[in-house]
Amino acid sequence: MMVNKVPSDIEIAQQAKMKAIGDIARDWGILEDELELYGKYKAKINSSIFTRLKDKEDGKLILVTAISPTPAGEGKSTTTVGLGQALNKIGKKTVIALREPSLGPVFGVKGGAAGGGYAQVVPMEDINLHFTGDMHAITTAHNLLSATIDNHINHGNTLNIDPRQIVWKRVLDMNDRALREVVVALGGKANGFVRQDGFMITVASEVMAILCLSSDLMDLKDRLSRMVIAYNHEGQPVTCGDLKVQGAMATVLKDAIKPNLVQTLENTPALIHGGPFANIAHGCNSIMATKLGLKLGEYLVTEAGFGADLGAEKFLDIKCRYGGLKPAAVVIVATIRALKMHGGVKKTDLSMENVEAIEKGFANLAKQVENIRKFGLPVLVAVNRFVSDTEAEIEVLIRKCMEYGVEVALNEVWAKGGEGGIEMAEKLVQIVDGTSPDFKHLYPTEASIPEKVDAIVKEIYGGDGVVFSSKALKEIKKLEELGLDKLPICMAKTQYSLSDDPNLLGAPKGFKINVKEVRVSAGAGFIVCLTGEIMIMPGLPKVPSAEKIDIDENGVITGLF
Amino acid sequence: MMVNKVPSDIEIAQQAKMKAIGDIARDWGILEDELELYGKYKAKINSSIFTRLKDKEDGKLILVTAISPTPAGEGKSTTTVGLGQALNKIGKKTVIALREPSLGPVFGVKGGAAGGGYAQVVPMEDINLHFTGDMHAITTAHNLLSATIDNHINHGNTLNIDPRQIVWKRVLDMNDRALREVVVALGGKANGFVRQDGFMITVASEVMAILCLSSDLMDLKDRLSRMVIAYNHEGQPVTCGDLKVQGAMATVLKDAIKPNLVQTLENTPALIHGGPFANIAHGCNSIMATKLGLKLGEYLVTEAGFGADLGAEKFLDIKCRYGGLKPAAVVIVATIRALKMHGGVKKTDLSMENVEAIEKGFANLAKQVENIRKFGLPVLVAVNRFVSDTEAEIEVLIRKCMEYGVEVALNEVWAKGGEGGIEMAEKLVQIVDGTSPDFKHLYPTEASIPEKVDAIVKEIYGGDGVVFSSKALKEIKKLEELGLDKLPICMAKTQYSLSDDPNLLGAPKGFKINVKEVRVSAGAGFIVCLTGEIMIMPGLPKVPSAEKIDIDENGVITGLF
Repeated sequence: MMVNKVPSDIEIAQQAKMKAIGDIARDWGILEDELELYGKYKAKINSSIFTRLKDKEDGKLILVTAISPTPAGEGKSTTTVGLGQALNKIGKKTVIALREPSLGPVFGVKGGAAGGGYAQVVPMEDINLHFTGDMHAITTAHNLLSATIDNHINHGNTLNIDPRQIVWKRVLDMNDRALREVVVALGGKANGFVRQDGFMITVASEVMAILCLSSDLMDLKDRLSRMVIAYNHEGQPVTCGDLKVQGAMATVLKDAIKPNLVQTLENTPALIHGGPFANIAHGCNSIMATKLGLKLGEYLVTEAGFGADLGAEKFLDIKCRYGGLKPAAVVIVATIRALKMHGGVKKTDLSMENVEAIEKGFANLAKQVENIRKFGLPVLVAVNRFVSDTEAEIEVLIRKCMEYGVEVALNEVWAKGGEGGIEMAEKLVQIVDGTSPDFKHLYPTEASIPEKVDAIVKEIYGGDGVVFSSKALKEIKKLEELGLDKLPICMAKTQYSLSDDPNLLGAPKGFKINVKEVRVSAGAGFIVCLTGEIMIMPGLPKVPSAEKIDIDENGVITGLF
Repeated sequence: MMVNKVPSDIEIAQQAKMKAIGDIARDWGILEDELELYGKYKAKINSSIFTRLKDKEDGKLILVTAISPTPAGEGKSTTTVGLGQALNKIGKKTVIALREPSLGPVFGVKGGAAGGGYAQVVPMEDINLHFTGDMHAITTAHNLLSATIDNHINHGNTLNIDPRQIVWKRVLDMNDRALREVVVALGGKANGFVRQDGFMITVASEVMAILCLSSDLMDLKDRLSRMVIAYNHEGQPVTCGDLKVQGAMATVLKDAIKPNLVQTLENTPALIHGGPFANIAHGCNSIMATKLGLKLGEYLVTEAGFGADLGAEKFLDIKCRYGGLKPAAVVIVATIRALKMHGGVKKTDLSMENVEAIEKGFANLAKQVENIRKFGLPVLVAVNRFVSDTEAEIEVLIRKCMEYGVEVALNEVWAKGGEGGIEMAEKLVQIVDGTSPDFKHLYPTEASIPEKVDAIVKEIYGGDGVVFSSKALKEIKKLEELGLDKLPICMAKTQYSLSDDPNLLGAPKGFKINVKEVRVSAGAGFIVCLTGEIMIMPGLPKVPSAEKIDIDENGVITGLF
């Protein structure tokens, strides 16, 4: 796929020369008492480190995002890992921060959310399996609340919960379509009151979003208690706090809240912590991990889910707002193949040279660059190279970037590791050293919900406006009445287009965004605007990868990737 | 409750002077490479240790069991922990092995399955919460198989699974009565074929029983593949192996299979690994942990669930059979209070002296002693002292034991730790040194199911025989046809009586045991005979302890016990 012949991801990962994680921690200034080992290559970092380092100057925050994703692939995580490795190669002490993968999808089509090629985080198998148990802790905390709801109703329902208006589902970290819609509490009096329910995959839980947006354990507990789990027969919200289980949930999450430390193939420290959905949630790793990385390195490189219109916008408007974070620069990952698709080429024709399609598809990249600049931030375009890319195609892309006035660098970290990202790293350092960004959010939270959504649609998506369904309008009115409308917006929109129609590639014009449903995640602290069906519980394919995954008597795993 | 005033369990546990688990491991001959730390006080032990120590002589295996339990409490785990501490005090290098607790019940009525008073394992909070993630791994492996079943049917059902005959439920480590009986796959074509299903609590999973009975990872995988998950339309069993996910399940369980090392309050090494139900499963910690303990210590003290008629019988007939284990002696825990209940005293009247009731209730203890001797093993009765016990009551119990010809020792480990168990430890060593047991199983596996059950009922329970329901007879016939009947028997019977009627205390006579249902756990390798309703998914009480559990900004947990 790339310039040189590269072995498979798992082969590379299994041949990695990992350092003991305790040694890496020591080298990067983490004290022994601040470290909790999980085996030799994984650790959690205690929150006491924040107190010790509170007066230390923060490093530079770099966000890696991308053009609108296509089936051709972009390599955002790979670029994040590779950029971290490259920055260390040119003498900038750099830490990376990534989301932690969900276990369920590993059994489905493909696992692996740990970068690729020579830009991976390791130990890959563990990171993609149970890791340090954070997902399981979230599943447990979430389902404890679920069990408490039905238990409360069963034992007399003094909170007067309307069973038709329970918005808190159950979760499992598994691709299991049969659990999407279920009926629970069948079997008579001993089993409670029958009602319809459903399971989401764990990463879709608001508990996950909260874990990622909390500043510490007490903030986490407060946020948990604010979660709306149902409405009562008077239409008033019933919260987790009303059920009094936020303390037990926080207890269950006491270790999950601690950032996890692993390493890249080149021993760059990697904080992998939290992984909320990028549609019904904000799609970024935890604020705590990001802040920790800023204390440990001169640079902290992190990423956000989906393309820049979704991931970067939420990173900048939600995560940075709650975390008080100020990015120094944004890297937008693009590939020749993806730009060709944005220019109208079908996936099957991608291997043919097509300069015109790049000229045309560049519109998507240009719009994403323009958007980032609206936040007052400098941009570097990182072109993730594939073997099929021709010199003419690369040339036209570089020329287009220069004409547009945006810095661009080629990126071969997949094939060459940090060495393949040196140009990118050097250009990024130049940008960071040469600019003093005037970072600003896109909208004030005090604006009304329609005003805030309108700003996103017009400024970021390039649309003409927003159409709310009558259901959405009713929901907005309700949130206004409840005083829950002064929160940032979390758009749940297709990632494939700047519009809400996945078929409109490039940089479409003249469209409106249709908001069908509006929900509040009062604990996480955002308002979710749904523009279409969002899959919150995946299924398994006909031949799931679970059939190929195996382990031998020496513990060597195959088929995982 | 005991002779001296003792602080609460959690107060004692939080004041424990724990050693770093790495230091304990080193002191007990575990190499650094064999240890995987989970924080400072928990570790897993790699299977490579078995190869290194395979020629080392095994220590003495001591089983701690009890009279038929009553609401008055017996203190089996407390005695196990205290006996381990006491043996170390008198110079016998002793390791203990316990079951790991389920997380779900912690949120219900009470948590804590880690001993009590000054005979506890620590860190108690972690052991009772996620510990090292074994339960979560079992939940994941189990539910992966569940998802695969519905997925297989959804994608064409080439195995011809009869959806009415799926015997594999889903699991969650949570007390959640609403999940006992559910309907899944509602919502139309995209979500699969609607069917009735249910959730069990994770410890009821056959995967848990298998983890505990496996000799290594490859044996685990083989056992997983043999599990019967459904019958097809021709009535033939469909196994996990037919769905080809045993490799993925074993991969998910790769760390869960490694025994966990923690310590007691007196720094005695404690292997806490596996915790299957004691009714539909065999109720003992893992064979791997038990065997490891036998390699590490001169003595390995372990326990089995419920009273001796259930726990010890299964330990001796199932676990010892699969593990090739030969116990050196059995300790039967009794309390004055429980014997009084067996003698007819109500719980509310327990604080009044009642020598007669002890004389009468002794029949239960005598029967349990007689039963253990049928396996060719020597017995020590350990009387777990409570403050309410009078001297006259203690005297009569000791006299009864002497008359019956069984060794007896007083046990004050709850109030005094190892120091309170020295008499017990010394008597045990005398017994072990003075006898060469001729251990034998109660029945040969080659016998028919009715013959095997008959042996247990007549020899152990003291009943007149067994009555199989017509359903059970049909199931037996089916297992015989399938050649699945030559396995040990796992009785699912009330623990409160030697009979199947929980109200018949003491040592009832003239009863028959009614087997209502017969199921095979072909992977674990036993046949479950159900004599009544078995609760496989608990519920929460009106005010669950989850409402009281909390954690403060320093991470101090309250309300957990």
